[in-house]
Amino acid sequence: MITLLGMIAGICTSVSFIPQAIQTIKTKNTEGISLITYILFFIGVSSWVVYGALKWDLAVLLTNVVTLVPCSVILGLKLKSLDL
Amino acid sequence: MITLLGMIAGICTSVSFIPQAIQTIKTKNTEGISLITYILFFIGVSSWVVYGALKWDLAVLLTNVVTLVPCSVILGLKLKSLDL
Repeated sequence: MITLLGMIAGICTSVSFIPQAIQTIKTKNTEGISLITYILFFIGVSSWVVYGALKWDLAVLLTNVVTLVPCSVILGLKLKSLDL
Repeated sequence: MITLLGMIAGICTSVSFIPQAIQTIKTKNTEGISLITYILFFIGVSSWVVYGALKWDLAVLLTNVVTLVPCSVILGLKLKSLDL
């Protein structure tokens, strides 16, 4: 039961940012999105990917690689909207 | 070194949503925020909290309790903005 709960938690948290990435790609509306949040989140998720790779922990590695893709898209679109 | 990386990853991912919650509280602008993302994220993070409690894994429990607070604020403000 606990393992199932862990899988639900992992799947939900890793796929949860896909709808945000799709919405942001469609609407180009990043005004309400916090740049600091996605910079920190990008650093955190990337660190989990490296951590999972170094420890060869596939659960940590795969869930965070899945999260890293939409997170990078959202961060990229947010940075682009700031015309830096 | 790997443990330090895990701590950086955990801290970054758990505090990363605090700036988003503060920005959303201040601006009340939730237009660019995906409702589905925060519903899935809320389910995922809550599941990690229960998982961490059942396994008495303090790292999982504490990092996700820290994440759950701003996540709930953002989801609440998003739902409120939809006048359901």
